[in-house]
Amino acid sequence: MKALCFDGELKLRHVKRPRPRPGEALIRVSLAGICGTDLEILKGYSGFRGILGHEFVGRVTECDEVQWLGRRVVGEINISCGECTFCLWGLGRHCPHRTVVGIANRNGAFAEYLVLPVVNLHAVPDAIPDEAAVFVEPLAAAAEVLEYVRVAPSPRIAVLGDGRLGLLVAQVLVHSHSNVVVIGKHASKLKLARSWGAKTVALSQTKLPAASLSLVVEATGSPAGLQEALRLVEPRGTILMKSTYREMAYFDTAKLVVDEIRLVGSRCGNFSTALDLLRGGHVNVQALISKKFPLHAGLEAFEYVENNPCLKVLLLPDGSSG
Amino acid sequence: MKALCFDGELKLRHVKRPRPRPGEALIRVSLAGICGTDLEILKGYSGFRGILGHEFVGRVTECDEVQWLGRRVVGEINISCGECTFCLWGLGRHCPHRTVVGIANRNGAFAEYLVLPVVNLHAVPDAIPDEAAVFVEPLAAAAEVLEYVRVAPSPRIAVLGDGRLGLLVAQVLVHSHSNVVVIGKHASKLKLARSWGAKTVALSQTKLPAASLSLVVEATGSPAGLQEALRLVEPRGTILMKSTYREMAYFDTAKLVVDEIRLVGSRCGNFSTALDLLRGGHVNVQALISKKFPLHAGLEAFEYVENNPCLKVLLLPDGSSG
Repeated sequence: MKALCFDGELKLRHVKRPRPRPGEALIRVSLAGICGTDLEILKGYSGFRGILGHEFVGRVTECDEVQWLGRRVVGEINISCGECTFCLWGLGRHCPHRTVVGIANRNGAFAEYLVLPVVNLHAVPDAIPDEAAVFVEPLAAAAEVLEYVRVAPSPRIAVLGDGRLGLLVAQVLVHSHSNVVVIGKHASKLKLARSWGAKTVALSQTKLPAASLSLVVEATGSPAGLQEALRLVEPRGTILMKSTYREMAYFDTAKLVVDEIRLVGSRCGNFSTALDLLRGGHVNVQALISKKFPLHAGLEAFEYVENNPCLKVLLLPDGSSG
Repeated sequence: MKALCFDGELKLRHVKRPRPRPGEALIRVSLAGICGTDLEILKGYSGFRGILGHEFVGRVTECDEVQWLGRRVVGEINISCGECTFCLWGLGRHCPHRTVVGIANRNGAFAEYLVLPVVNLHAVPDAIPDEAAVFVEPLAAAAEVLEYVRVAPSPRIAVLGDGRLGLLVAQVLVHSHSNVVVIGKHASKLKLARSWGAKTVALSQTKLPAASLSLVVEATGSPAGLQEALRLVEPRGTILMKSTYREMAYFDTAKLVVDEIRLVGSRCGNFSTALDLLRGGHVNVQALISKKFPLHAGLEAFEYVENNPCLKVLLLPDGSSG
């Protein structure tokens, strides 16, 4: 089958189709999404080698648990041991023995097929088309912010960054909160955010005063975002860090201590929440799709993402099996 | 009166004795403690100019609220406006209009007298001698960690740093938790920690595995401490940052995000808690006193602190008034 592999360099390759073991499903990928993390991996993040890709929707074509056969699925990306204390507490995505689809020690979804344990699968309701279902993984990650804003009664919230992740986070927050501002660089992306009910501010012109926000979600993908988040957050406020990047970040720990700020890392989220948000029509992902490429033009797709101020780029396997 | 003033340089000066306004008390300082923050101020932290010192115990000598006259007191160091939303929520120590005794826009306690609003005063119970009461401010800051460890049933806790603040934090934690380890550089200080029931590990020999602790309290006073804290904390764990220093810290935000770590700044704490801990004999501060100097030898005292691996150094006003 065709697959986009990274071995220090991104290459389109013909590789052997994987075979499912007991408890696993072979999934024919229908659609896959390119994520900021994929771009970071190309720069060296996580040291990954293998088939890239962790956002996908597909259909089960082989599985010894027959109820899954033919079903349209999305898949949790952390494959955990099931036996350590993290797994016992339902925190398998922090299992120290985990592999991660297309990110750590496990082949990903930029291919015609991938294999996943059945316990990782979520059936996709008919009401959710492939082009929405392919957003379940990043939307789940975005929806994890809900866990952190439940307490404050009427928080003033900013999403810093108007990229793929920032816009998903903004939609999730707008769904349940009235005071959400997206701070970004791109007029067209900010316009999109306004169409969902967010307020917006252009980063270059921001006159938002220091220490004026209860919660700042850092989704810029760059260390500079943390500095601005620290400027904007009020004493006892929270900064939620969503973006992963390779560089180290500098910051003023005295500000963190004196203002007793909480800086919280947040990565993956709950797939069920994401599926509910999509099924209920609370989140619009259609507007986030910038372009689609066939899998065999995967290198071109990556070039496009790197060189254009776009949102989500999707890959469609060609229809031929390897 | 004599006072230790900082104007870019530390100087012993004769200055006018301050006069209390309505609602304020004039306090004759009995004993004052030198803190890491004082040393940082000498290096430029906070840009403070004026009389240094924020750890003290003293006696009220002038006050229009007569019930305070002659009482032995300690004082909250943040003087807030009383009217902003932080003040309304009982978070006056985050009031944006605050001044801070010996740290920001208000003269401090390395003097024969200081003035404080009556609302900042706490009467010291007879059972607590001056040499313990002088620790109320740093002990309150140390005890704030209790706010963060209430949830986990049997957390594995490390205090990183065996200095003044680290040892106070360790005592507070040992009082209510069984698994507390102090990681430090100084054999004598670690021995002290063991005498209170903490486990100890020498920083140079630490074989503590990565990601093995639920809570790491960073009290080293240096950016390197944050790196080690990030190494030691487990996924979903908490790093509590207690130390303020002037330098910026570098850190790997990807680790924070991937492991969903909470990095929480913590500064001042509750004076009542500190007084309760001292009165109940749960915290031993006597062993933390390294040396005492008369106020007129204040410069010498600072020199001693900077050049010796000591714990708390105290200043005693000379008995003559200015």
